[in-house]
Amino acid sequence: MATPTRIGLAGLAVMGQNLALNIAEKGFPISVYNRSTSKVDETVERAKKEGNLPLYGFHDPESFVLSIQKPRVIIILVKAGAPVDQTIKTLSAYMEKGDCIIDGGNEWYENTERREKEMAEKGLLYLGMGVSGGEEGARNGPSLMPGGSFEAYKNIEDILLKVAAQVDSGPCVTYIGEGGSGNFVKMVHNGIEYGDMQLIAEAYDVLKSVGKLSNDELQQVFTDWNKGELLSFLIEITADIFGIKDDKGDGYLVDKVLDKTGMKGTGKWTVQQAAELSVAAPTIASSLDSRFLSGLKDERVQAAKVFKASGVSDILVDQSVDKNQLIDDVRKALYASKICSYAQGMNLIRAKSVEKGWDLKLGELARIWKGGCIIRAIFLDRIKGAYDRNPDLANLLVDEEFAKEMVERQSAWRRVVCLAINSGISTPGMSSSLAYFDSYRRERLSANLVQAQRDYFGAHTYERIDVPGSYHTEWFKIARQSKN
Amino acid sequence: MATPTRIGLAGLAVMGQNLALNIAEKGFPISVYNRSTSKVDETVERAKKEGNLPLYGFHDPESFVLSIQKPRVIIILVKAGAPVDQTIKTLSAYMEKGDCIIDGGNEWYENTERREKEMAEKGLLYLGMGVSGGEEGARNGPSLMPGGSFEAYKNIEDILLKVAAQVDSGPCVTYIGEGGSGNFVKMVHNGIEYGDMQLIAEAYDVLKSVGKLSNDELQQVFTDWNKGELLSFLIEITADIFGIKDDKGDGYLVDKVLDKTGMKGTGKWTVQQAAELSVAAPTIASSLDSRFLSGLKDERVQAAKVFKASGVSDILVDQSVDKNQLIDDVRKALYASKICSYAQGMNLIRAKSVEKGWDLKLGELARIWKGGCIIRAIFLDRIKGAYDRNPDLANLLVDEEFAKEMVERQSAWRRVVCLAINSGISTPGMSSSLAYFDSYRRERLSANLVQAQRDYFGAHTYERIDVPGSYHTEWFKIARQSKN
Repeated sequence: MATPTRIGLAGLAVMGQNLALNIAEKGFPISVYNRSTSKVDETVERAKKEGNLPLYGFHDPESFVLSIQKPRVIIILVKAGAPVDQTIKTLSAYMEKGDCIIDGGNEWYENTERREKEMAEKGLLYLGMGVSGGEEGARNGPSLMPGGSFEAYKNIEDILLKVAAQVDSGPCVTYIGEGGSGNFVKMVHNGIEYGDMQLIAEAYDVLKSVGKLSNDELQQVFTDWNKGELLSFLIEITADIFGIKDDKGDGYLVDKVLDKTGMKGTGKWTVQQAAELSVAAPTIASSLDSRFLSGLKDERVQAAKVFKASGVSDILVDQSVDKNQLIDDVRKALYASKICSYAQGMNLIRAKSVEKGWDLKLGELARIWKGGCIIRAIFLDRIKGAYDRNPDLANLLVDEEFAKEMVERQSAWRRVVCLAINSGISTPGMSSSLAYFDSYRRERLSANLVQAQRDYFGAHTYERIDVPGSYHTEWFKIARQSKN
Repeated sequence: MATPTRIGLAGLAVMGQNLALNIAEKGFPISVYNRSTSKVDETVERAKKEGNLPLYGFHDPESFVLSIQKPRVIIILVKAGAPVDQTIKTLSAYMEKGDCIIDGGNEWYENTERREKEMAEKGLLYLGMGVSGGEEGARNGPSLMPGGSFEAYKNIEDILLKVAAQVDSGPCVTYIGEGGSGNFVKMVHNGIEYGDMQLIAEAYDVLKSVGKLSNDELQQVFTDWNKGELLSFLIEITADIFGIKDDKGDGYLVDKVLDKTGMKGTGKWTVQQAAELSVAAPTIASSLDSRFLSGLKDERVQAAKVFKASGVSDILVDQSVDKNQLIDDVRKALYASKICSYAQGMNLIRAKSVEKGWDLKLGELARIWKGGCIIRAIFLDRIKGAYDRNPDLANLLVDEEFAKEMVERQSAWRRVVCLAINSGISTPGMSSSLAYFDSYRRERLSANLVQAQRDYFGAHTYERIDVPGSYHTEWFKIARQSKN
């Protein structure tokens, strides 16, 4: 290597290796480094095999950093938290004013804001960049959510535009905003992903447990769904999953997979931030709770025994259903619930944007999620359209097109949730979405009673529907008087 | 005042004044202090009026502190956060080794743990004590949840035992545990309170909006309910509320109260902690979300217009219902949902207790909530009974008595939630409780699909139902091969 490389990448686990190869393949000479050097050699080997890509490996941090052209840009892809701080410490020792570090991990946004400040004190630039798409996306085109120093973004915009997934509306990357906004948006993206996966699992449950669909039929249903309004990566891979036979025995692999779901933290953060920002996000929360409850396998086995002994089976009654009607209803219920989930996620992002002054463009986010990432879907065009029509839209539900879609689907949606309830199977995502819809579209809720209670026992005061102002009533005294 | 007083209290807002008078009335001479001195004089005046109680006011912190017998014990009741730190700073300047400060506010438990450490460095003791019961409870007997220094607790146990609410099973106070456990337990208590209030509001909504019950009828229903399994403070005051006429016009006051609910932070913390501790708490979360959505009054008015224009009314169809059957069903739905909510809250406390090594006794908590506090209810006897039968009970739902009660009520519960769904009104608390029940009692959930998806796109691996170990499948490759 005679001339310096264009960029560096440190941290060569699955995501890092693939992103480095992607960058090299797009024609940008790249230096790579990893603390355990075998990963470096492995990556260099892959770069050769995959077409002699301009990728150069380094076994020590100093020569790695010095091999990159100035101002240097280094993407790090290591575990969030302390490993990021450690890597920054190692690399920044050799970096100079104007150089930039980009954290591509799923980092808590406040850590990025702290680091951006610390780096600025040394004259270094910093970006926190959400990267979605898993291994495959990293290699062939992820969705990229860079936030932080705009100057740093500009320094590598040419690379990001080529490395990101390409869709008809352009590359799936945009400068998100200042500070930790890139991480925050990626976090909510993951929360939405949790919601999508939960809703699909519920659709599967209703079709399988109530509709008695076989895996072949389920594969056909999801394949059909993937030709219409639900067209998306997650629906597509779900169809694939139903087709895969068990390699260790009879039947299908999906039926042998244990019903225990892991998680990595971003869904939890999303739910905590929703509470922090006073944004209702019940669909996303229910997907997190479902993962928690899935983890209690032993307790569930025990509880099932207790209730079966009292005559309450898993499936309460076998209800006779028209399969085609059920499939159509479930599709509508899934779609309507999905609208609610995205409405929650988008409003969460907006609430944070207002709090932090990030000025995020919700329509742009829908655009860059259209390719590369796990939640990529034709549906995102509709969300972009809604924010194009009205950037200040209070909630996706009241966009004219979405409202129309909700109205057309609500009867089917209610049928599905009630069918599930009467069958004794839970659809927490669909039912909490429906409750969200019915609460949001209701002029008068029963919250007047809650506020009256609060004023009764805690003198928290209340407003009135007819006269402005804040009021307190001596409810207890009046009630006691009328009793005497 | 010739001899020193037994205890001091600083912070004479509503709660502080009433707790001080309560302590004085129980025969413990008390010194009181407040930064703005008019509150001091006001409290002294009240002490005279309410029976020449042994309460002594001080206008400066030094003479206040020095008036108390050693080792001094001072309860502070000021706004959580910075004001607590400020008050501690002011008072501790005059305190001596072995003296103790007790924070009686709704403080974040970690603040208490930090302060306990800081105080220990000065040789001072510290307690964080949850106090529930509002103004009335503080004056006549609250539920007290002291946590922190056991030595400090012992120093004032005689006072707390007399000041707390007295019920047949004893005074509503116990030493909760070390560190911030008293605050944590009070926080969850408040989260449970949110859940109870939301469930009652939903019962009200279904009875009023679907059952068309008048306020008179509602008052009668809640009065009747308060004679049975639902007997509780919140049901009692709800009955009272329905009886109170508007003093500013025709009709009932509850109908004039704006449907916007305030909140103060403990509900939010409970939901965030549930996520942190991987404990599903959907009933409590839905009550928080309902408060958030209640706050969006203007958006809801607008949304209602949008959907009404498309023919979707607030109440979708007027369903003919048998009033008595409905009342009975709603009571059962409310009770069953309440069991789920308490199961969530108790499991949240246990998860934290395990994490922190607090060794909390869940049955004891049910006991001290039986009087004085907002969630006081006959129902708590059943919870205590469940933990007496089995202190390691995994979940209240599988206690033999609760399981029996759930089985008896589940059909009514399902009817109520489906009726609400088909009427277009939301019952997020009842429906999320039902989903919790149906998930928890199910041996096999659809989480296998979610985990298969995670392994498909992120190589997160999965377990199998038949063979131990962790597996990864190349889903994409296999699916592609079978397509070709």
